[in-house]
Amino acid sequence: MTRIAFDLMHQVVFEAFRHAGMREADARVCAQVHTESSCDGIYSHGLNRVARFVDYIRRGWINLDGRPKPVKRLGAIEILDGDFGPGVLNALHSIDRALALATEHGAGIVGLRNTTHWMRGGAYGWRAADRGFIAIAWTNTESCMPAWGGRNPRLGNNPFVMAVPRAKGHLVLDMAMSQYSYGKLQVTRLKGAKLPYPGGFDSEGTLTAEPGPIEQSMRILPTGYWKGSGLAILLDTLAAVLTEGLATHEIDKVGRGSCGGCSQVFIAIDPRQLGGQEFTDRVADGVVDYVTSSTPAEDATEVRYPGEAQLRTRADHRARGIVVDDGVWAEVLALAGRDAT
Amino acid sequence: MTRIAFDLMHQVVFEAFRHAGMREADARVCAQVHTESSCDGIYSHGLNRVARFVDYIRRGWINLDGRPKPVKRLGAIEILDGDFGPGVLNALHSIDRALALATEHGAGIVGLRNTTHWMRGGAYGWRAADRGFIAIAWTNTESCMPAWGGRNPRLGNNPFVMAVPRAKGHLVLDMAMSQYSYGKLQVTRLKGAKLPYPGGFDSEGTLTAEPGPIEQSMRILPTGYWKGSGLAILLDTLAAVLTEGLATHEIDKVGRGSCGGCSQVFIAIDPRQLGGQEFTDRVADGVVDYVTSSTPAEDATEVRYPGEAQLRTRADHRARGIVVDDGVWAEVLALAGRDAT
Repeated sequence: MTRIAFDLMHQVVFEAFRHAGMREADARVCAQVHTESSCDGIYSHGLNRVARFVDYIRRGWINLDGRPKPVKRLGAIEILDGDFGPGVLNALHSIDRALALATEHGAGIVGLRNTTHWMRGGAYGWRAADRGFIAIAWTNTESCMPAWGGRNPRLGNNPFVMAVPRAKGHLVLDMAMSQYSYGKLQVTRLKGAKLPYPGGFDSEGTLTAEPGPIEQSMRILPTGYWKGSGLAILLDTLAAVLTEGLATHEIDKVGRGSCGGCSQVFIAIDPRQLGGQEFTDRVADGVVDYVTSSTPAEDATEVRYPGEAQLRTRADHRARGIVVDDGVWAEVLALAGRDAT
Repeated sequence: MTRIAFDLMHQVVFEAFRHAGMREADARVCAQVHTESSCDGIYSHGLNRVARFVDYIRRGWINLDGRPKPVKRLGAIEILDGDFGPGVLNALHSIDRALALATEHGAGIVGLRNTTHWMRGGAYGWRAADRGFIAIAWTNTESCMPAWGGRNPRLGNNPFVMAVPRAKGHLVLDMAMSQYSYGKLQVTRLKGAKLPYPGGFDSEGTLTAEPGPIEQSMRILPTGYWKGSGLAILLDTLAAVLTEGLATHEIDKVGRGSCGGCSQVFIAIDPRQLGGQEFTDRVADGVVDYVTSSTPAEDATEVRYPGEAQLRTRADHRARGIVVDDGVWAEVLALAGRDAT
């Protein structure tokens, strides 16, 4: 593990994206989002995802000229077609449109269809909260998880984001519908460890905390068993209906990589037009204080609110550099055309 | 177990509510909602909840004259004050207002504060879907569950509802944030059985599927461990912010029973103004077909979509009578001033 300064990482990722053919301004924005994700400790969708994104560009799965096009406008609802453009740019445009609609109407809903992987869903929650807005957002994905009671993948992990702005640190929830990601299974297996709790079924249908057999069976567990399964089904259906776009069973046929052709929803609400930021802070502070003042459980030292860990990691990484895996860093340096030394 | 015809149950519950002092029209509507819940197999919030509701009226925790009063209107957002009126009536009024706003604007959001227990959250999802609307709704509650990493109750179980209308049967998800309800723990303990999966921690902090020790420790498990905990926190915060109402830590101080003073959110979207009902049906049918055609797991015979079980139970109960617990039925008969024979 090495630590890399934020600005250096941003520059190197920018160069990698430029090498892959992105326009300068686009590469700069995408590099910023990837770097911020690693800076917040969400490595899987930060630096670690750069090579895969570049690979998708090279395969022609991302349309570098694709830009969101308005399809329909209906009061505070807007539907956009992402034209398979870079998912981060499409999603940033969409959340910003939702914020503009919320400024105008109090609330705004943007449905974005035919887009590509938005990387870290939480990025759009943080963006809204940084601008003083509440956000609810989600995406559907290709299938990667069996529905409850089934053994073959039929559900996306459909990440779901909720954010509330707060002066002392926003509340930002960013959760996928599987109990663990495949990335977490892999990392745990490579360490020779077990998952903290059962994460799926082996090929005989036995619930297990051993990552290897779950990777083989592809029977990862929906979070909360039947509950995460049901939530994934509704999020998928709503995403496709609200965007007039594709649902998981259709994304599976697109063949343009993870999330190629997916549908995303961005709901924004302006709390300043409701009780005001001061009231919002008072509510959020009250919730946070109540939760974090819990008596810690036997194996815990503290209770945290959603978003707290990211803020702490961000502060540490900003001060001391972003933690990187040496192999991943070398890979991205190579993509940037730089010497790995 | 006995079976009682829908109309008879409706009449008896109506009489019980009349005896408790409700106005005739209000009693009729509330009895309808309780009966429909039992008819759908959600006994806990149907017939089984009648006595508790009557008890709340007698304690003065429900304001029988309370009606939702407009507090604020902002484009497609409306905030109402429920004045501690009957939670079912307040929630029905609010979902209907959200549908009206959605008819006008494509989407509508109603925030209802200072209300009381809405009974079965799914009722408002079914109502919206029956009228052709998409709905997302949730409530906060008093604390009944520790946050992840804590040992004392600090979170509500904050039921969350999503509904999509579909000609062949609506998709309706109605999930609380705990893996199991206290009702499920009790029923399981009385049977001398274990929970299907761990449902909480005993007083030593050991995860267990034994219901008794969890009831004693009050350490029920958030669904998906940290995920349900985080979702409960965000739903609570948003409910209070969007309604300018109370959050869980404040509801805990109200002292008017379960959910007394809670905050509820009703979001409605009109799919007929987007892709249309035909498109919505096509999406929803596609999702349902994909999911239900899964290969069943070793211990399953079929894979169902959210709402399917309720529809089946409803059809059976409509045809053959609603299954009731004899003791509960006798109790409600007594509340109605009827002889239990």
